[in-house]
Amino acid sequence: MPTIDVHTHMYPPALMSVLRERKAVPYVRLFEDDVQSGERLVILPAEESGSTARGRPIGPEYYDVIQKIKFMDTHGIDISVVSIANPWLDWVSKDEAGPMAQTVNDDVERMCVENEGRLYHFGTLPLSAAVEDVVKEVERLKSLTHCRGIVMGTSGLGQGLDDARLDPIWQAIEQQQLLVFLHPHYGLPREVFGPRNGDYGHVLPLAMGFPLETTIAVTRMILSGIFDRFRDLNVLLAHSGGTLPFLAGRIESCIAHDAHLKKAGKIGGRRAVWDVLKKNIYLDAVIYADVGLKAAINASGADRIMFGTDHPFFPPLDEEDDQWLSVTSNMSAIKSALKGDEKVEQDILGGNAARVLRLTT
Amino acid sequence: MPTIDVHTHMYPPALMSVLRERKAVPYVRLFEDDVQSGERLVILPAEESGSTARGRPIGPEYYDVIQKIKFMDTHGIDISVVSIANPWLDWVSKDEAGPMAQTVNDDVERMCVENEGRLYHFGTLPLSAAVEDVVKEVERLKSLTHCRGIVMGTSGLGQGLDDARLDPIWQAIEQQQLLVFLHPHYGLPREVFGPRNGDYGHVLPLAMGFPLETTIAVTRMILSGIFDRFRDLNVLLAHSGGTLPFLAGRIESCIAHDAHLKKAGKIGGRRAVWDVLKKNIYLDAVIYADVGLKAAINASGADRIMFGTDHPFFPPLDEEDDQWLSVTSNMSAIKSALKGDEKVEQDILGGNAARVLRLTT
Repeated sequence: MPTIDVHTHMYPPALMSVLRERKAVPYVRLFEDDVQSGERLVILPAEESGSTARGRPIGPEYYDVIQKIKFMDTHGIDISVVSIANPWLDWVSKDEAGPMAQTVNDDVERMCVENEGRLYHFGTLPLSAAVEDVVKEVERLKSLTHCRGIVMGTSGLGQGLDDARLDPIWQAIEQQQLLVFLHPHYGLPREVFGPRNGDYGHVLPLAMGFPLETTIAVTRMILSGIFDRFRDLNVLLAHSGGTLPFLAGRIESCIAHDAHLKKAGKIGGRRAVWDVLKKNIYLDAVIYADVGLKAAINASGADRIMFGTDHPFFPPLDEEDDQWLSVTSNMSAIKSALKGDEKVEQDILGGNAARVLRLTT
Repeated sequence: MPTIDVHTHMYPPALMSVLRERKAVPYVRLFEDDVQSGERLVILPAEESGSTARGRPIGPEYYDVIQKIKFMDTHGIDISVVSIANPWLDWVSKDEAGPMAQTVNDDVERMCVENEGRLYHFGTLPLSAAVEDVVKEVERLKSLTHCRGIVMGTSGLGQGLDDARLDPIWQAIEQQQLLVFLHPHYGLPREVFGPRNGDYGHVLPLAMGFPLETTIAVTRMILSGIFDRFRDLNVLLAHSGGTLPFLAGRIESCIAHDAHLKKAGKIGGRRAVWDVLKKNIYLDAVIYADVGLKAAINASGADRIMFGTDHPFFPPLDEEDDQWLSVTSNMSAIKSALKGDEKVEQDILGGNAARVLRLTT
């Protein structure tokens, strides 16, 4: 049974060229006051200022497919389903978005072709383009033989994923049987982390802002009825659903007790969050501990959980470490949660992804 | 074995008088354009405007101890450990805070005395007063024979619970062996829930804002080293820890991979989040589903989980319902998570609270 990584990022060379030319987030550059640390990648507004260094060092692991394969070999990963990393093409102007999405998606497809059997990918949509152009790219993606889905942030057309204007896009995605990989980027406003946030490095926004962004986004999708209108739409949630498995009961309870929703006739007839979790949602296993992973399994079912690494983010702080702690802790969590049930362990490590995404080595 | 509710609120009569006189949040009043719905309680700034009705109807279940006892009898609850509800005394001026805390705490103690064996309480601190006056109230609370802890929001002295100026207060609480019941109130800024937030009633801020506020607050406490300095400080987290059980692995991973924390020498030597969860933290069982409850048990241990109701919040929408869904769903979650292990079920329903809080019927 293959080991398959469904949460792994690359900035393909075509995108790197663009990021190196840019002067605002997201961008890649040398900083004059810190040239010795080499090129740095800044993808979050919060990384622009504050007490910590701007962005992160960016080396070939971010854009060189040879490094991706090497990382996979080191960790026993047979197949990676790569997606470009946040913030995807959220920042591209309306006119440039369509052509840039094609360029980027084609460049990732090229890498997959050149590494047949090792790489598949989730494409990227030009969401700032006209809706009909977005739909066209969805249809075009289906023709890329290694594309199995679409990585998507939480902003949609600028007003979130519960925006009815997205319906033609959801419809196209459902028709093409592409999996939406929903991934956070914007986190939460910095002030929610308090005045001493900077003392804790990036821990609070990364550990809490990202998962909440995902949870809010998917709950808005559920509350707006997307999964009632598109019952075969399938979404893979990053970081084991953010916090959805843990909070689903509270969300259901808040719905059942909401006078406004009752008055609007929206409590009866809707699909329960648990039903969506078990029929439309897949969860990656990027949660770093068995407590969270067991909750993910209990929420969606062990046949809907898929191993991931979040590579090349979270590299080891000791550069000589060969195995990445961020990867081994996710692998250990699977072993620990399954307690020797090797069949289910293998399903989560790769069997589920192979089945759902129709992958062959 | 008694059933004990550790998460249950009251606005005692002494506090109700003050809330009825106030003209800004938090307050209780009739609204001229909606007199027929009676007195309404507005405790959240978000309830002041928007498409939904202001605040919530407030009846005797919020302030009449007879109603609390009746609710307990209906649901088979032997003992309630009541706390006043958010936003506690966060809004009181510096000079008024000390006397008001005494008045409110004494009024709650009176209700406990008048219902011997049924009621205990968590007191409230005058956090806007001078620190030495706060410490005096901590010491005075210990002399109230039914007080077992202190309910506390997340704002501390105005800058959060990771504020070093709180150290004398933590020290006094630790010395007096009082349990801190950490409870959210401020949630998250409304904009994080998107432009259609109002269409979903109060679901998003209640279901997600509150738990995240708790998670951020306790993580800030951990990161600032409070549990290293006060190793016997015990904290009961509302709503099963917000999202801490689910996110603890990610928090640990983000710490272990943070270059800023490494440079500051803050990665080694610290206590792991898991260690704090198992030695300093207790979790209520107000999570409405077995998936979340199991995660709470796995994170802290079944001997650290305590049943709660959040009464009088989340009343049934059908007023003729005798049993409250918000209560029965939490009771069902315990049964479902424990799968017939009656000993542990009884521990969570009351045994743990009786032991930890030294309660006798």
